[in-house]
Amino acid sequence: MEIEIATIGGYEEVGRQMTAVRAGNDIVIFDMGLNLSKVLIHDNIQTEGMHSLDLIDMGAIPDDRVMSDLDGEVRAIVPTHGHLDHIGAISKLAHRYDAPVVATPFTLELVKGEVEDEQKFSFDNDLIEMDAGETMQIGDHGLELEFVNVTHSIVQAINPVLHTPEGAIVYGLDKRMDHTPVIGAPIDMKRFREIGREGNGVLCYIEDCTNANKQGRTPSENVAREHLRDTLYSMEDYTGGIVATTFSSHIARVKSLVEFAREIGRQPILLGRSMDHYSGTAQQVGIDFPSDVPMFGYRQAIDQTFERIMNDGKGNFLPVVTGHQGEPRAMLTRMARGETNYELDDGDKVVFSARVIPEPTNEGQRYQAEKLLGMQGARVYSDVHVSGHLCQEGHYEMLDALQPQHVIPAHQDLNGFSGYVDLASDQGYALGRDLHVTSNGNIMQLV
Amino acid sequence: MEIEIATIGGYEEVGRQMTAVRAGNDIVIFDMGLNLSKVLIHDNIQTEGMHSLDLIDMGAIPDDRVMSDLDGEVRAIVPTHGHLDHIGAISKLAHRYDAPVVATPFTLELVKGEVEDEQKFSFDNDLIEMDAGETMQIGDHGLELEFVNVTHSIVQAINPVLHTPEGAIVYGLDKRMDHTPVIGAPIDMKRFREIGREGNGVLCYIEDCTNANKQGRTPSENVAREHLRDTLYSMEDYTGGIVATTFSSHIARVKSLVEFAREIGRQPILLGRSMDHYSGTAQQVGIDFPSDVPMFGYRQAIDQTFERIMNDGKGNFLPVVTGHQGEPRAMLTRMARGETNYELDDGDKVVFSARVIPEPTNEGQRYQAEKLLGMQGARVYSDVHVSGHLCQEGHYEMLDALQPQHVIPAHQDLNGFSGYVDLASDQGYALGRDLHVTSNGNIMQLV
Amino acid sequence: MEIEIATIGGYEEVGRQMTAVRAGNDIVIFDMGLNLSKVLIHDNIQTEGMHSLDLIDMGAIPDDRVMSDLDGEVRAIVPTHGHLDHIGAISKLAHRYDAPVVATPFTLELVKGEVEDEQKFSFDNDLIEMDAGETMQIGDHGLELEFVNVTHSIVQAINPVLHTPEGAIVYGLDKRMDHTPVIGAPIDMKRFREIGREGNGVLCYIEDCTNANKQGRTPSENVAREHLRDTLYSMEDYTGGIVATTFSSHIARVKSLVEFAREIGRQPILLGRSMDHYSGTAQQVGIDFPSDVPMFGYRQAIDQTFERIMNDGKGNFLPVVTGHQGEPRAMLTRMARGETNYELDDGDKVVFSARVIPEPTNEGQRYQAEKLLGMQGARVYSDVHVSGHLCQEGHYEMLDALQPQHVIPAHQDLNGFSGYVDLASDQGYALGRDLHVTSNGNIMQLV
Amino acid sequence: MEIEIATIGGYEEVGRQMTAVRAGNDIVIFDMGLNLSKVLIHDNIQTEGMHSLDLIDMGAIPDDRVMSDLDGEVRAIVPTHGHLDHIGAISKLAHRYDAPVVATPFTLELVKGEVEDEQKFSFDNDLIEMDAGETMQIGDHGLELEFVNVTHSIVQAINPVLHTPEGAIVYGLDKRMDHTPVIGAPIDMKRFREIGREGNGVLCYIEDCTNANKQGRTPSENVAREHLRDTLYSMEDYTGGIVATTFSSHIARVKSLVEFAREIGRQPILLGRSMDHYSGTAQQVGIDFPSDVPMFGYRQAIDQTFERIMNDGKGNFLPVVTGHQGEPRAMLTRMARGETNYELDDGDKVVFSARVIPEPTNEGQRYQAEKLLGMQGARVYSDVHVSGHLCQEGHYEMLDALQPQHVIPAHQDLNGFSGYVDLASDQGYALGRDLHVTSNGNIMQLV
Repeated sequence: MEIEIATIGGYEEVGRQMTAVRAGNDIVIFDMGLNLSKVLIHDNIQTEGMHSLDLIDMGAIPDDRVMSDLDGEVRAIVPTHGHLDHIGAISKLAHRYDAPVVATPFTLELVKGEVEDEQKFSFDNDLIEMDAGETMQIGDHGLELEFVNVTHSIVQAINPVLHTPEGAIVYGLDKRMDHTPVIGAPIDMKRFREIGREGNGVLCYIEDCTNANKQGRTPSENVAREHLRDTLYSMEDYTGGIVATTFSSHIARVKSLVEFAREIGRQPILLGRSMDHYSGTAQQVGIDFPSDVPMFGYRQAIDQTFERIMNDGKGNFLPVVTGHQGEPRAMLTRMARGETNYELDDGDKVVFSARVIPEPTNEGQRYQAEKLLGMQGARVYSDVHVSGHLCQEGHYEMLDALQPQHVIPAHQDLNGFSGYVDLASDQGYALGRDLHVTSNGNIMQLV
Repeated sequence: MEIEIATIGGYEEVGRQMTAVRAGNDIVIFDMGLNLSKVLIHDNIQTEGMHSLDLIDMGAIPDDRVMSDLDGEVRAIVPTHGHLDHIGAISKLAHRYDAPVVATPFTLELVKGEVEDEQKFSFDNDLIEMDAGETMQIGDHGLELEFVNVTHSIVQAINPVLHTPEGAIVYGLDKRMDHTPVIGAPIDMKRFREIGREGNGVLCYIEDCTNANKQGRTPSENVAREHLRDTLYSMEDYTGGIVATTFSSHIARVKSLVEFAREIGRQPILLGRSMDHYSGTAQQVGIDFPSDVPMFGYRQAIDQTFERIMNDGKGNFLPVVTGHQGEPRAMLTRMARGETNYELDDGDKVVFSARVIPEPTNEGQRYQAEKLLGMQGARVYSDVHVSGHLCQEGHYEMLDALQPQHVIPAHQDLNGFSGYVDLASDQGYALGRDLHVTSNGNIMQLV
Repeated sequence: MEIEIATIGGYEEVGRQMTAVRAGNDIVIFDMGLNLSKVLIHDNIQTEGMHSLDLIDMGAIPDDRVMSDLDGEVRAIVPTHGHLDHIGAISKLAHRYDAPVVATPFTLELVKGEVEDEQKFSFDNDLIEMDAGETMQIGDHGLELEFVNVTHSIVQAINPVLHTPEGAIVYGLDKRMDHTPVIGAPIDMKRFREIGREGNGVLCYIEDCTNANKQGRTPSENVAREHLRDTLYSMEDYTGGIVATTFSSHIARVKSLVEFAREIGRQPILLGRSMDHYSGTAQQVGIDFPSDVPMFGYRQAIDQTFERIMNDGKGNFLPVVTGHQGEPRAMLTRMARGETNYELDDGDKVVFSARVIPEPTNEGQRYQAEKLLGMQGARVYSDVHVSGHLCQEGHYEMLDALQPQHVIPAHQDLNGFSGYVDLASDQGYALGRDLHVTSNGNIMQLV
Repeated sequence: MEIEIATIGGYEEVGRQMTAVRAGNDIVIFDMGLNLSKVLIHDNIQTEGMHSLDLIDMGAIPDDRVMSDLDGEVRAIVPTHGHLDHIGAISKLAHRYDAPVVATPFTLELVKGEVEDEQKFSFDNDLIEMDAGETMQIGDHGLELEFVNVTHSIVQAINPVLHTPEGAIVYGLDKRMDHTPVIGAPIDMKRFREIGREGNGVLCYIEDCTNANKQGRTPSENVAREHLRDTLYSMEDYTGGIVATTFSSHIARVKSLVEFAREIGRQPILLGRSMDHYSGTAQQVGIDFPSDVPMFGYRQAIDQTFERIMNDGKGNFLPVVTGHQGEPRAMLTRMARGETNYELDDGDKVVFSARVIPEPTNEGQRYQAEKLLGMQGARVYSDVHVSGHLCQEGHYEMLDALQPQHVIPAHQDLNGFSGYVDLASDQGYALGRDLHVTSNGNIMQLV
């Protein structure tokens, strides 16, 4: 059976991930993501009403025109998890394919949100829920799609595996190797090791190279949780304002914030559109997340909440807000500019349970936000965080578990791949033979 | 009563700390340390036989000749904890003063080790044990010395407080603010807050500025412990060699390494002269440290141990060795060069539960050590560590607790003080008024 | 005669410089500057109409209320050169003093521009021109003000020296040690050496510490000129668009750009408000600057110019524009966004004859500007530049020349002073004795 | 005609360059270099007596065993210039090939020095001199080898071009684009542009990616010369010791040092083995280099010279010595340690006309050297230097001139290639199509 892999997007950047695997006549697409930074560099662009071709020209979504060179039928569109760089182009591109979107419940719910906001294209693909550990048949020639449970900075992430007669194709985006992930099950390394040894083994492994230049091992979410616990408990005696911010989609982290807020005697309140969106979705699909935490996404409700907080006393609350990157229009930045009713006083604490995404634009905005917070007397606690992506020792362990015949680094640019290539070369792979550094828009024939 | 503070050493560097406080006719000396980097930059210098004046000229030990300008009697020499930059000059300088060395048991035992190695000067000062929470009378004019329990990267660290009629002098070197320190009691913030409010309050606070340019809060040792646990448990299934290294004097960290080694089914063995020295001392003075962990400091015993490990199977052991900075003659570097019987194989793990002290010499040596380890196939896990020193939010909390009239930054150079000066200025202190950036060899009259 | 120095502004930052020297009953003020970054962090603030007290509260201009503690008469306000951090508060503060502004012609002309834009306060201080090498009497008690020629990134910079019976006060802001400065005379080191040795020598030297943490020697403007020549000549055969940007006030650099543009067969055109302002002022006061270079500051004229350039062919022109820091509203950024008629094509060259001022806000904006330029195909040449401030070896030479009794580092924060303090300490000065690290608002009595 | 390119060494590192091009039955080898860092990481290794296979195992020299997969006759071994990473393996590998070494006179003379020191292998390949601009016939099937003049940090560097019926193979290592190179002719861009347009154009271009991650344009050697002139002239009035160091092989830089030393009234003396070797060789082959500058390579002569300098007065001399990277056994480091007769005094100047090669080992050693110099009072002037390698705009210009069908980045690791791949991709090349990121030991069939 012929096997081809089309590396459509996310092979020269972090963002707009899209990969298609053809096995015989059947095709599965993994991820359809958005590169948000390509949108934000322009002033005042609203993507909801834009045509996909314009977004392709901007480099914002994958250029899927290469799909016409793949000779087969698309059987499924499989987003691995709910981050925008993996689902953000579904609303723009999925309608072109007569295939269902297959994903875990939380991811699927977030996909629904995306397509509901879309103004330009209509979307009527089927939506199929599938949990980690489950499989589905693809086409009629012996292909099977399996979801292996992985751990990431968002819940219900999976690595899809396409089992073919020639061996398994393991699509390894995005994950860290977490054995104590706070929410959900640990990464299923046992299953990866089985896949590496059963049948024809692994034909090809596509790897998440986000942190491939970082030595060592990404700590578990539990380490971040202990760090966060230590941070918030150190403020236990403080009677003024405490505010926290983190990635809205990072449900496990938000959960930890909510729990520790309560443990130190404060009521957590989630504020901001995306806070409300992701945490609300988590509650809706039955994630192990506190059901009774108040959350508000709209301006008026937020204003009223801040008023109530100021009236009742800041010391009784712990608002968890958007703005961890210093985004100019996010809640925390507005608080820092004095544009909300929440008044920061000398000694008030602001906890960034996130790190700055290392890019000068973010660094500049975050610097401004912290400066403005400091001008109001706030004390800043940064980097109470661990990454959601594998570092080098995770890559080493995955290669050891899967023993793939071919390896394709993804989810970075060439600079970002370099640490992975060094590591894989040390393990016996070679560029130009079985280690494939590629670019967007290529098709690789493996069998 | 006249109060003078002589800032003798460690006010332009990290290292060779020494401060004298005169209250009326009575003088107490805090710390007498060694700046090891000033020794190591020269080839093949042995300090044991050297005269103190030569070491002073090299900048290796404090220039205590300024003591002759202090008009009073030295009543006590008080090392705050057992690190060399706080006790390393006692063997060279203490004999000049007719005063006892007063310290916690573990610190005192380490002082004994220092003076036993000394070849040039004899030492017959009294040694007085005093625990955190205890006090002793100094002279006959109402002075009292108190030890307040603090938390640092070595056990039994204290902050000495000299109570005078004019207010308390709090000598704040070295500490972090740790509420879950793995070994020993949490930092005694309650007592600091009391001292800040009782009597005349705090006349002067001398602060550990090691991390004063770092934002946020130093995490608890417990966070490092969870990180270490996560790291070692991730290797649970590995059957080859695992080696760890950390600061020999960091008893809590060594303890965690010992415990987790056992939990993942390996026998911990401590190897290297200083490993043996510090851990042995900890056992001797009754620190909460496993009594049955084997440790070897001498070459022959180490060689035999490595032989036994290789015979029994590396998978049964976890050697904890010296060499976390890549020091050319330390155990780990020798292992990396293949100079020991311990053979590293592809995939063997080396855990650095330490970070590189950020100075190009260390960075170069550590880089070499890691390169050599990598050439043998070893996998390196770095930075499983948290600092033992306060960051900015700890400084903020200390100022808030003590409300001192005068503040003196210490344990850094001017660049290192800058973050502290900014912070203290924001809290209302002013350079040239009550915030004293000074240098080695100055005497400041506070009353 | 009593000598006091009030360090009013610019002793905790780069920006809002102001220092007053009292000798007996007579006071001279050196510089009255603006810290622009304290204005820009707020959205949409127009300083022209603001009250000085509000600007003081923002940290934007010096808090000169400490002047009331100086017992004497202000005889002169002496801006050293025309940069905003030295003259930008004259329009807000000078009217409070019954004293003339004394400056070199170019600086004085720029001061006039400042006070003309002012909307809140009226200004009727006398304006007195004085050239480098000239002196004037101050008061009636033997004081003399002298201007020593120095070299900086703006023309007609001087170091004012106040000669008193107790020795000279040398105000050393801002300069580099340039013996081949492209425009104007080399730095007058001979005169500095004389001042260091005549009469009572130098009582106090206030030093420009901008680059005090940088090793070595700041190269001459001639080195930047050769670098620029090399850069532009390498484009000699290119027939498309070439655009350059630099500090508008850097007349020598603009002159080099103009000359090399012509040498490679292109017509230079200066575009942007501040380009027009500074270069126009330079022509007006007779600086050695090409008299026939077209320059346009207003939108309409700029638009017409761009249209003409596009019609005649970009290859015939070299626009020199504002925007070297990626400022969002500057000309180059607007060109990068496609908001002007000048169309950038693949391969067009953009020369930044400037470096990014190292602060995250600038770095973020500059990054964005370069990204946008790159999206249009432009090729970017950065850092064709040398600094206008002394590095460490310049500081060493100044101390050697002047042999001052007292030294005060200025024009930085404490972190920025640290390299200077190390250097001065190596030369025998000591903090707390004759090396004075101070802060804004202090008064120091030297005699 | 079949064309294959074997990328033998230097495709994963800077060092041990070696590339073979087969056209039909004829093979030309470009470069045979040594990766010195792979030798130095081991203690006390002498390569002169080592077997090539051991050096291959260490990664020190190219693994040329892949040559047996190339079906043809080696007709020439062509080192591009005299740096060790290009000629340092000739003594170990060339004897296996029945082919002459073809190089420019200076390069050839350095090759002779290499093979004379060799102890393990004998060498009897022919040596053929060929100058830039000249050509020679290769085999009997229409191949021609041409040397195009380029500019680098060593004199007489060329880019060899193999003209084949299928187009030209341009081997582009190592160069910068220098139009005013101090010694020798400017880079021959005119010829590159011709080659790009004549016949079948350029089939393949192999590019020097050393600086491919650096923006802008590498300045001319003339800019370094002006910087050096400015530096040394600023010391014109100093009467004590001035010492300079630079790359020994950088003849143009040494020449500038010699000339400026004389211009400021000092006698230049070159000291150290490699100083003597390279400059002596330059004189020997008639490079435009002062014929009368004294140079000494052996210990005894150097000791006598230092004695004479100290007797006659340091102020009359300017020793140019080895040790720009702080190498522990180099002359400058020995001077810094006080191991020579040359006594450094307070204020003496040390000029590093070189930059630290950015690798932690070098950085550590250089830091130590500077610390030791500082402890003796010396003033350090660093980074009076420009690189010898193209930055991005040079790469852009080369692509524009040559318009190659295929491009192969070389002389870096994958991280180092990343900037080049981005640039080439922007110019329309694509990974996996005509832009070939490869690794050591691969063979690529182009036709």
